[in-house]
Amino acid sequence: MTLRSLTNGHTVELLLELAKERGATERFKSMISGAIVNPTEGRAALHTAARDFSGTPVTVNGIDVTAEMKRIRDEIREFTKDVHDGRVTGSTGKPFRHVVVIGIGGSYLGTEFVATALQHLGDKSIELHFLSNVDIHNFGAVVSKIDPEATLWIIVSKSFTTAETMANANLAMVFMKDRGLEPERHFISITSKGSPGDNPGSNQTFPVLRSFHMFDFIGGRYSVTSAVGGVPLSLYLGYERFEQFLMGANMMDIHAANAQPEENMPLMAALVGIWNSNFLGYPAQAIIPYASFLAKLAPHVQQLYMESNGKSVTLDGEPLDAKSGVIIFGEPGTNAQHSFFQLAHQGMAFPIEFIGVVRPWYEKYRSLSRGVTNHQELWANLLAQPRALAEGRDNENPHKKFPGNRPSSTILIEDLSPSSVGKLLAFYEARTVYEAFILGINPFDQFGVELGKKLASDIRSRMAMKNSDPNRSFDDLDPSLKFYLEKLFDAET
Amino acid sequence: MTLRSLTNGHTVELLLELAKERGATERFKSMISGAIVNPTEGRAALHTAARDFSGTPVTVNGIDVTAEMKRIRDEIREFTKDVHDGRVTGSTGKPFRHVVVIGIGGSYLGTEFVATALQHLGDKSIELHFLSNVDIHNFGAVVSKIDPEATLWIIVSKSFTTAETMANANLAMVFMKDRGLEPERHFISITSKGSPGDNPGSNQTFPVLRSFHMFDFIGGRYSVTSAVGGVPLSLYLGYERFEQFLMGANMMDIHAANAQPEENMPLMAALVGIWNSNFLGYPAQAIIPYASFLAKLAPHVQQLYMESNGKSVTLDGEPLDAKSGVIIFGEPGTNAQHSFFQLAHQGMAFPIEFIGVVRPWYEKYRSLSRGVTNHQELWANLLAQPRALAEGRDNENPHKKFPGNRPSSTILIEDLSPSSVGKLLAFYEARTVYEAFILGINPFDQFGVELGKKLASDIRSRMAMKNSDPNRSFDDLDPSLKFYLEKLFDAET
Repeated sequence: MTLRSLTNGHTVELLLELAKERGATERFKSMISGAIVNPTEGRAALHTAARDFSGTPVTVNGIDVTAEMKRIRDEIREFTKDVHDGRVTGSTGKPFRHVVVIGIGGSYLGTEFVATALQHLGDKSIELHFLSNVDIHNFGAVVSKIDPEATLWIIVSKSFTTAETMANANLAMVFMKDRGLEPERHFISITSKGSPGDNPGSNQTFPVLRSFHMFDFIGGRYSVTSAVGGVPLSLYLGYERFEQFLMGANMMDIHAANAQPEENMPLMAALVGIWNSNFLGYPAQAIIPYASFLAKLAPHVQQLYMESNGKSVTLDGEPLDAKSGVIIFGEPGTNAQHSFFQLAHQGMAFPIEFIGVVRPWYEKYRSLSRGVTNHQELWANLLAQPRALAEGRDNENPHKKFPGNRPSSTILIEDLSPSSVGKLLAFYEARTVYEAFILGINPFDQFGVELGKKLASDIRSRMAMKNSDPNRSFDDLDPSLKFYLEKLFDAET
Repeated sequence: MTLRSLTNGHTVELLLELAKERGATERFKSMISGAIVNPTEGRAALHTAARDFSGTPVTVNGIDVTAEMKRIRDEIREFTKDVHDGRVTGSTGKPFRHVVVIGIGGSYLGTEFVATALQHLGDKSIELHFLSNVDIHNFGAVVSKIDPEATLWIIVSKSFTTAETMANANLAMVFMKDRGLEPERHFISITSKGSPGDNPGSNQTFPVLRSFHMFDFIGGRYSVTSAVGGVPLSLYLGYERFEQFLMGANMMDIHAANAQPEENMPLMAALVGIWNSNFLGYPAQAIIPYASFLAKLAPHVQQLYMESNGKSVTLDGEPLDAKSGVIIFGEPGTNAQHSFFQLAHQGMAFPIEFIGVVRPWYEKYRSLSRGVTNHQELWANLLAQPRALAEGRDNENPHKKFPGNRPSSTILIEDLSPSSVGKLLAFYEARTVYEAFILGINPFDQFGVELGKKLASDIRSRMAMKNSDPNRSFDDLDPSLKFYLEKLFDAET
């Protein structure tokens, strides 16, 4: 991987000084070695341990985490091989051809990013589906695409109580039972040890064939390299490719922990981000991969970064005196050029991270158009955009003027191999935590999602009452809530 | 449709005064009647004419546009019926089961939004694919999913010279010929009268079966209701549903032109947008539909709005003294809650447009979880989020404090019928042009994309030289360009 970004030498020096003063690299290393870097929840943050093949123990609460991770990887290897070889099948004996991941947020978005990026390697005759949204249309669309007898459902929830996930899991269970299929042959879980979804057989509500464990020292948005991504990705791509993906991520972790600051790509990217947001005042950052299979990178980083660094207080609970967290958005190029780049060039400026892939997968389609291949045409655009943004161009006609001086960085990855995608994933994880370490915030908690959950729970209770007593009115509620709930219940009857 | 937004009475009065002073409604009406509202390109903007069933002529350059649109709709109806009934087939006689739209930006994104929103109605045994990105991975992925003998390709390009589209069209042509299939039985075009892709038979480079016309008075990003969306959507959904979709859009146009300002939904939404960006200073706007089939709404509006209003000069070419264009982004809820809502609640605030669907399509899946259906669970969250954002909540623990006072609007649509989706589409079109009319900018040109195209063309020429003379070095180029081009060409050899 290569990172190129235009910032002037003195700025870079000052930014590196800031990183040093904040002890960014030391904090990164202490994270990897199992320190409690998530103090508000009293937890370590050990996503890096999920891809640590060094054999060096990392101990948390008396558990050697790397050994535990190896044990889980072995379970994944064995289970997915059993599925691919037809030793584990559905209850009518049909081999599994559809895998549905039931999970939301960190329990699925990273997996979707990686599966989309590596779709050219999905050669195990297994289609991967995601049932994330509690919206019944998501369920309806998924079940219209599967063959129930050949479907394995994976319920992903650390607590096994996530409202959306459990609602969908319940629906899926009823759907399978209605078709005479045994849930304990068609459902597996990825969950905490001892959760209501753990331990096959012992739990009557959700009889599952297998459970794979997840841990409180790996947060959802950092969990792609754990069992959360490991089980579905190994089913879809084969375990070996999942391991190559982990090895790529591990290479980036080693780089992020040990490279000299000025050559440390995630650290430099974090500093450029802080420069853009805090010193140049930009409120957003676009991520534009010139690669259609990286279509889900921006949504993944949107979650990873905005949930991690969308904070307003320091680790000590003091109001943060710097800007933390910007809006992350993006679509693949060249599509984005034809969509929102008008604003990037002539409207409100925002920094852009361009991503290029050096070597394309489909080498066999190579007709020339205007003297170049499609991959070259793509690159002509990838190289032109940063220049157009930076240089601008004057024109007598004010409608055709380009102010220029608009910042961007360019990241290259070698190809769309599992290893390269692993590096990219770990790059964004390291960039995110580096930014947090420099700003002094906690990138591992997410208390900001609690209030919405609480209020939704109140409204849900009110709906449940109405369901059991249809004559009950909403007159006791405030007018706005009454308006909406009456509209909803009127439509349903 | 219903729009609810919390703004105080006096603010609304002042905003309505602004709209009146700028003659917003008059400009909207003159747009509909064919005035040159795009003066920098000397064009009318008549997307509304594509769904005007009133029979009233609208004349531009001596052509009655509504009659012309009716003629094209009749052609679409007849052609798609011929395909559905098997009268028009591929060159080996197989009925068409795959339709691939080759087009980029405005030539496909709106169609993808509508096709995704109405996927539950895609019952014509036709799969719809999009080949938009020049990235060869996009081509590779599409051709791995189709049966060439049963594939109809639709090339969408007004000029028939768009670099990406022509590169993909060339590849597709070679791909089909290699398989012994006659292009003139498998390709159709949607293009301007007289373009190199028009007139079946007369053009040797691109022999097409049929051409449907598009016009310079409908810009790409406003073209979903023209032949651009009409042909693929009618093939996918049936012409009748496409017409219902147009009727919904037309109802919104009539509302946008005639409703009293204070009850005019797109006008009010435009004013709220101006209030949020210019008076409250927000740089972005999230669109969060609580409906997974509306997953492509935010990307569509991102293009529609950011390309239309990402301008810095007025109609007269004077520097604009107001802020125009904000960043549009979004993902469906509840997914977004688990992704980036941490930042929305506790990090940098940004206004959110929530969208709810009153009546779900899949009524048959109705298990209760925690006493409510999935659709009710979805709504509990839809209703909870605006409250959590607005009200906030205090807490002794600073990590658990919610500042509140964060703005949002809520839009309801009745269902995911073609008519409702048409209303939603036309709502965002009208909202976008209303904002431009009030600010005094031109929402119909896009000169900001030209510089990037020009620079890409220079780089492409340099690549083409290297392709024809592999010994040629890049030493004459600046070091950065040399670095990248050497990397690319080294990888290819």
